[in-house]
Amino acid sequence: MTHEHTAVSGVTLVLGGARSGKSRFAEGLVTALPGPWTYIATAQAWDDEMRDRIGRHQAERVPGWTTVEVLLDLAGALAAAGDGPVLVDCLTLWLTNVMLADRDVAAAVAALEAALAARTGATVLVGNEVGMGIVPENALARAFRDHAGRLHQRLAATASQVFLTVAGLPLKVK
Amino acid sequence: MTHEHTAVSGVTLVLGGARSGKSRFAEGLVTALPGPWTYIATAQAWDDEMRDRIGRHQAERVPGWTTVEVLLDLAGALAAAGDGPVLVDCLTLWLTNVMLADRDVAAAVAALEAALAARTGATVLVGNEVGMGIVPENALARAFRDHAGRLHQRLAATASQVFLTVAGLPLKVK
Amino acid sequence: MTHEHTAVSGVTLVLGGARSGKSRFAEGLVTALPGPWTYIATAQAWDDEMRDRIGRHQAERVPGWTTVEVLLDLAGALAAAGDGPVLVDCLTLWLTNVMLADRDVAAAVAALEAALAARTGATVLVGNEVGMGIVPENALARAFRDHAGRLHQRLAATASQVFLTVAGLPLKVK
Repeated sequence: MTHEHTAVSGVTLVLGGARSGKSRFAEGLVTALPGPWTYIATAQAWDDEMRDRIGRHQAERVPGWTTVEVLLDLAGALAAAGDGPVLVDCLTLWLTNVMLADRDVAAAVAALEAALAARTGATVLVGNEVGMGIVPENALARAFRDHAGRLHQRLAATASQVFLTVAGLPLKVK
Repeated sequence: MTHEHTAVSGVTLVLGGARSGKSRFAEGLVTALPGPWTYIATAQAWDDEMRDRIGRHQAERVPGWTTVEVLLDLAGALAAAGDGPVLVDCLTLWLTNVMLADRDVAAAVAALEAALAARTGATVLVGNEVGMGIVPENALARAFRDHAGRLHQRLAATASQVFLTVAGLPLKVK
Repeated sequence: MTHEHTAVSGVTLVLGGARSGKSRFAEGLVTALPGPWTYIATAQAWDDEMRDRIGRHQAERVPGWTTVEVLLDLAGALAAAGDGPVLVDCLTLWLTNVMLADRDVAAAVAALEAALAARTGATVLVGNEVGMGIVPENALARAFRDHAGRLHQRLAATASQVFLTVAGLPLKVK
């Protein structure tokens, strides 16, 4: 069941819990392909904890990446990324940004799907699995996990590969 | 690892996180069998959010279903459902109903198991995976996830098939 | 995908959500091997709920086990356990103990890894999957799930077998 880093193509969705090694696994999928590689970072460093996290992730990444930071216009960043392999890390923060900016989630998701379909290079999308705990008491958190779950379902339906990482190891779901 | 909607028989348990596509997958398992199909709904529409959810689920379902609403007597509803395939959506709300009504959970689970064993038609049970987050601070939530986990274990032990849905895709666990 | 209780060797990591049957599955892996068996319990009975849980787990265990209780020095307990199979139940409580005692987590994890590498007998480690829910609002809970996730990744990287239990059934991850 472990994955041998065979070459992916099309769209790959890598889901996993917190600290499940999803980013590292996803990066390995991308760097197994010929470059240049584009890293689309959706994280906004709005506190020290987040800044530390982003810094640690960047330090762990091997050289050879072009990093693009994007908060909302993920579709535009994908269109501008050319034909090489792209890593999007992560869908969860992007969705949070879209919700916090009060944008229309359905429209943003539709634009993302169109941008993914238009790419010729491989795209690896990282997302947090957030739906396997107790129902959150907070209504915004409930809305968020509903949107996240539906987003993952839509992307998984057309993705070429879907993985769930557990303790750093990939379970192949599709 | 993806599931080809092969015909299920006996008891099938479909677990998954919130918005993981478990209901849709479970419905597909039932409608792959000859009808008539019975949908046993355990949801109580006690607020607008829940009413919306139920309405959306009903609208998405294809015609040809007989819908039965039940809050507590799931065993009785299964006994009354005849020999055709039955979908129970979902165990989690039923267990919540049983706990909120202060009924004996062990007795209710034993009655459910007896009713399932007595059926000749296929039964597909949907349940939420709720145990993969941080320990809830709320004691009732802790008790709930303990009961849910034990219920799923008991049903899985005798089920013919068990699936975990991830992003709308089934992982076959048994 | 279900596991036939084939004989494990080296280090086995069994992860699972709350009430997912991980302890029972892990015990079955150990008792499928020749004894004597050592059970290293990391639970501290600091309230009635926990005392009940520990008592219930002990009552369910078959005779033939030597039980060792340890709060912090898991590496020492592993070194003292001899060459027979050992079950550690669970990593999650041990990590909690280490954090609450304000010990250095990285040093404790390094000592654990060294102790595991030095064993000749099989070691089965049980841990809670806690990272698949919504981000906890509590900073300590966030730190905990980060530490737990990284611990699981490190152990899984060198483990011979890794399982995720779902409803009492094992998914083989490695």
